[in-house]
Amino acid sequence: MTNPIPVARLTAFCQSALRAIGADDATVRDCTASILHGSLHGVDSHGVRLLPHYIKALEGGRLNKAPVLRFTQTRPGSGMLHGDNAQGAVPTYAAVDHACALAREAGIGAVGITHSSHFGPAGAYSLRAAQRGMMALVTCNSDSFVRLHDGAERFHGTNPLSIACAAPENPWLLDMATSAVPYNRVELYRSTGTTLPDGVASDSAGADTTDPQIAEMLAPLGGAFGFKGAALGGVAELLSAVMTGSGLSPDLASMAGPDFSTPRGLGAFVIVLDPDAFAGADLVRAGITRYLALLRASPARPGSRVMAPGDREWTEAARRRADGITLDPVTAQAFDELSERLGLPLLADPGM
Amino acid sequence: MTNPIPVARLTAFCQSALRAIGADDATVRDCTASILHGSLHGVDSHGVRLLPHYIKALEGGRLNKAPVLRFTQTRPGSGMLHGDNAQGAVPTYAAVDHACALAREAGIGAVGITHSSHFGPAGAYSLRAAQRGMMALVTCNSDSFVRLHDGAERFHGTNPLSIACAAPENPWLLDMATSAVPYNRVELYRSTGTTLPDGVASDSAGADTTDPQIAEMLAPLGGAFGFKGAALGGVAELLSAVMTGSGLSPDLASMAGPDFSTPRGLGAFVIVLDPDAFAGADLVRAGITRYLALLRASPARPGSRVMAPGDREWTEAARRRADGITLDPVTAQAFDELSERLGLPLLADPGM
Repeated sequence: MTNPIPVARLTAFCQSALRAIGADDATVRDCTASILHGSLHGVDSHGVRLLPHYIKALEGGRLNKAPVLRFTQTRPGSGMLHGDNAQGAVPTYAAVDHACALAREAGIGAVGITHSSHFGPAGAYSLRAAQRGMMALVTCNSDSFVRLHDGAERFHGTNPLSIACAAPENPWLLDMATSAVPYNRVELYRSTGTTLPDGVASDSAGADTTDPQIAEMLAPLGGAFGFKGAALGGVAELLSAVMTGSGLSPDLASMAGPDFSTPRGLGAFVIVLDPDAFAGADLVRAGITRYLALLRASPARPGSRVMAPGDREWTEAARRRADGITLDPVTAQAFDELSERLGLPLLADPGM
Repeated sequence: MTNPIPVARLTAFCQSALRAIGADDATVRDCTASILHGSLHGVDSHGVRLLPHYIKALEGGRLNKAPVLRFTQTRPGSGMLHGDNAQGAVPTYAAVDHACALAREAGIGAVGITHSSHFGPAGAYSLRAAQRGMMALVTCNSDSFVRLHDGAERFHGTNPLSIACAAPENPWLLDMATSAVPYNRVELYRSTGTTLPDGVASDSAGADTTDPQIAEMLAPLGGAFGFKGAALGGVAELLSAVMTGSGLSPDLASMAGPDFSTPRGLGAFVIVLDPDAFAGADLVRAGITRYLALLRASPARPGSRVMAPGDREWTEAARRRADGITLDPVTAQAFDELSERLGLPLLADPGM
């Protein structure tokens, strides 16, 4: 692992690299914001390690370096956003902006996104709405990795559901895959030769396995009650693909390529609620304050601590803001290669 | 168990019993419709076995026999419904009606419900919206039964999430508790002396137990990943209690009493999306048709079958419509007592 890199320096590097390959201002801003959200909050799987991937897709033509988004409001609370094959953060942040505006007018707003691509950490987007005083749901589907309940093939993607709600201090924030674990957990265990937990992965016949070497697909969340996790993956699919007329998970080209020139046509979906249109902003603020206080004071199992969704992330973000962000070796090497190829200053200079 | 009772006869009995104790027409209609939804679709925990409970609450004064609901539209897509302490089905079906109307106007509609009570099977309400061509989410919170992730006390209720989406034949229908199992599963295993599955219940210190005799609380959905289940329980809480200004799960008086005279002040929440305001009704219909076909054709594990959410329920409903509905012994006896006390014809006459 590298020495920790200050957040500002890492941010500047991501922006410079994207700018150097010709991405437009919105792509530079939004792609960087979303992957820094991941790296800052400890969601390293969806952090700056994705930068080389996005650059490859932007250079290959899968992603549009200068997208022109087209928003169509369909009714007072609803709209569709055409992403013009942008890097996924661009239309998703834009959809949050539109959905917040719709919610202010209509009480609740929903925006279906089409012609998008991998958007990184779902929590980056629901958090943005919560920072504006709202409650939000953000979801997308993705290429197939997860079997159905009692299924024996990859069907759904890891199909995240992210929900956030404004609170007086840090928001309440959930960002979860609807699979039992993310796929990169399997890859990590494969590289370290570790045994997987029970019930999170299956072999090519769909049978449970704890051997990461023969794991061919993920299990849906819920173990023996995997019909719930599979159905939650279905909720992501219904909103992101069915409601928007975009590709179903089994239709989607692999994020990993080999084709990096063809747009993948992903859908996504954003719903925003304005608390002021329900019990009222003051009452809702009092309610969530009390809820979080009760929750954090709830007795824990011996040796454990009860946390609200997001608490782990705020702690990690404070630590990383102070101490900097450490890159894994693969990402560090990819960043060095980007430095050299694009003529950018080295990320970790010797004087640090 | 009783001999199977024809659906029409069971429906008439529930209606007669509610009418006999003085419930108004809306309560007779909606309470019966919701519990018959449960009994018809195999959700017996939330079926007609609840009738004696609701009658006790209506007679005791916890529930209002002649509620006057008050709906306030706050913005084009949002509103609040005051339930006037009705039996929970009455305001929840009404909220679905309002949310469907809002969604037709605004593309998406949301209704927060206050002053409600236990509403039985959540799926009854999302299904109603789906039968009108919509996609819907219906949720409520309930008195504490479920520990938090790493928690050691009952905190959330079993806080269901129900989501349904219209499809050309039967809708897609999910109705799930956010606990690993429902509490009545623990009670059932206690009475039969069976060992519980791993990781679904905890003793009074929050430690996992498979012994139903010492199970004091339920685990959140997700096993080792219970932070996801606990957060999903939190989503129900945020929508049903925080957004509506109603009681949090730890605030709520026990459904089981002993107090059957004081209204419990439950909240609930309904969100409805009109597909025609997104990709358009035709494209969405084509999308869900293809999704369901792909899903049902997905290879299964040996000896298993892959089903869409709701498929088990439609099969069971067809069987029960043909063969009738069987009552468990406790419910059968309670119905006999109601027959006698209220002067109603016996449910299962000897001539059947």
